[in-house]
Amino acid sequence: MDNHFETGLDELRQKLLTMASHAETAVNRAVQALVQRDADLANRVKEDDRVIDHFEIEIDEFAIQLLTKAPLATNLRMVTVAMKISQDLERIGDEASKIARRARDLALEPPIKLNLDLPRIAALALDMLKAALDAFVNRDSTAARAVIPRDKEVDALNKHIHNLLAQYMVENPSVIGCCLHWMVASKSIERIADHATNVAEDVVYLCEALDIRHSGMKSQPVPA
Amino acid sequence: MDNHFETGLDELRQKLLTMASHAETAVNRAVQALVQRDADLANRVKEDDRVIDHFEIEIDEFAIQLLTKAPLATNLRMVTVAMKISQDLERIGDEASKIARRARDLALEPPIKLNLDLPRIAALALDMLKAALDAFVNRDSTAARAVIPRDKEVDALNKHIHNLLAQYMVENPSVIGCCLHWMVASKSIERIADHATNVAEDVVYLCEALDIRHSGMKSQPVPA
Repeated sequence: MDNHFETGLDELRQKLLTMASHAETAVNRAVQALVQRDADLANRVKEDDRVIDHFEIEIDEFAIQLLTKAPLATNLRMVTVAMKISQDLERIGDEASKIARRARDLALEPPIKLNLDLPRIAALALDMLKAALDAFVNRDSTAARAVIPRDKEVDALNKHIHNLLAQYMVENPSVIGCCLHWMVASKSIERIADHATNVAEDVVYLCEALDIRHSGMKSQPVPA
Repeated sequence: MDNHFETGLDELRQKLLTMASHAETAVNRAVQALVQRDADLANRVKEDDRVIDHFEIEIDEFAIQLLTKAPLATNLRMVTVAMKISQDLERIGDEASKIARRARDLALEPPIKLNLDLPRIAALALDMLKAALDAFVNRDSTAARAVIPRDKEVDALNKHIHNLLAQYMVENPSVIGCCLHWMVASKSIERIADHATNVAEDVVYLCEALDIRHSGMKSQPVPA
C-alpha cells in the first residue's frame, strides 16, 4: 500500500479524534451548565462549537485532498466514512450549543420542583458516542454493533422525561416556559445519541462493507 | 475529461434528483396529513421514508464506486457533495416521518382553536429546498447563496408559532399534549429548512470551491 496515503489516513483519524474530544467537552459543559444553572459555563460552549465547526471544514478539505491519492476502494470508504463522522460530530456540537442556550435561559428562572435526571440521559448518550469512537479507532464492528440498540434506552428515557414535564405543565401552567426549555434540552441529548448511533453504523459499514443503516440491524450486502 | 466518469456523474445527479422528489413528496404529504387530519395519508409517509432511506445507501455506494474513477479533485468534490446532499435529503425524510406521526396523533384529538399557519412555514421550507436543488442542477452559486438568508425567515416563523402555542398552553392546560405535537411538527419543518440551507451551502462550496459553512456568508478560501 502507498505509504503517503497511509500517513494521510492516520492524520485524518487523528484530526477526527481531536474533533470528537471537543464535541464531548461541549456536551459535558452544556449539561453541567444546565444542571448547575451556570450561565458562564453555557457561554463557553459557543466557543467549543466554533472550534468544532472549523474542524469539519478542515477535515472535509483534507479528506478531498486525500481522495486524490487513494489507491483502493476500501480506502475511499475509510475517507468518506471519516467525512460522515465529522458531520455527525459537528451536529453534536450544534446540539450542545442548543442545550447551552436553554441552560442560560433556565439560569434566570427559579428552578422547577421536578427530578428529571438529565445527567443520566446525558451520560448514556456520551457513553454511546465514546463507544462508537473507540470502535472506530479499533475498527471493531462487534463493539460498534453493540452501540446501536442502546439508542432505544435513550429514546425511552427522553420520552419519560417528556411525559414528566408534560404532566407537570398541566399542573403548573405558570412554569410552562421552563418546562419547554427542559424538554428541548432533553430532546437535544436524545439527538446526540442518534448521532452516536450514526457513527456506530458507519463503523460497521466500514469494517464489514455492509450497510446496516435503515435496516434495523439487518445487514445488506453491498454490490461489488 | 474521462467520458465514463462524466456519464457516472450524470447518473449520480439523476439519482439525487429522484431522491429529492421523493423527499419533497414526503414533506408535502406529512404537512397535508397534519393540516387535514388525515391519518391514512400520514401512514403513506412511512413508505416514502423507506424509499428515501434506500436511495441514501444506493447513492453512497454509487459515489464510492465513482470515486475510484475520478480523475481530478474537482470531480471528487462533486461526488462528496452529492453524498452530503443525499444525507440531508435522508434527514428531511426523517423529519417528514416525525411530522406524520404527530399528524396521526393529532387526528385522534379534537382540533385546537388556534390559527397556526403551518402550511405557510412548510411552503417556505419546501421553496428553499427546491431553490437549493435547482441551484445544484444549474451549478448556480448566486442562486444557492440567495437561499441561505431565507432560513432566518423560517426560524422567525417557527419561533412565532412556538410562542403562540406556549401562550395557548398557559391558557388551556387541558390541551397541552396537542400543543406539544404542533410544536414538534413546526420544529421539524424548521429543521427541513436547515437541511435545505446545508444543501445550498454545499452548492456554493461546489461552485466556488469556497467553504461558507459556519461563517455567516463570510467566505473563506480553501487551502490548495
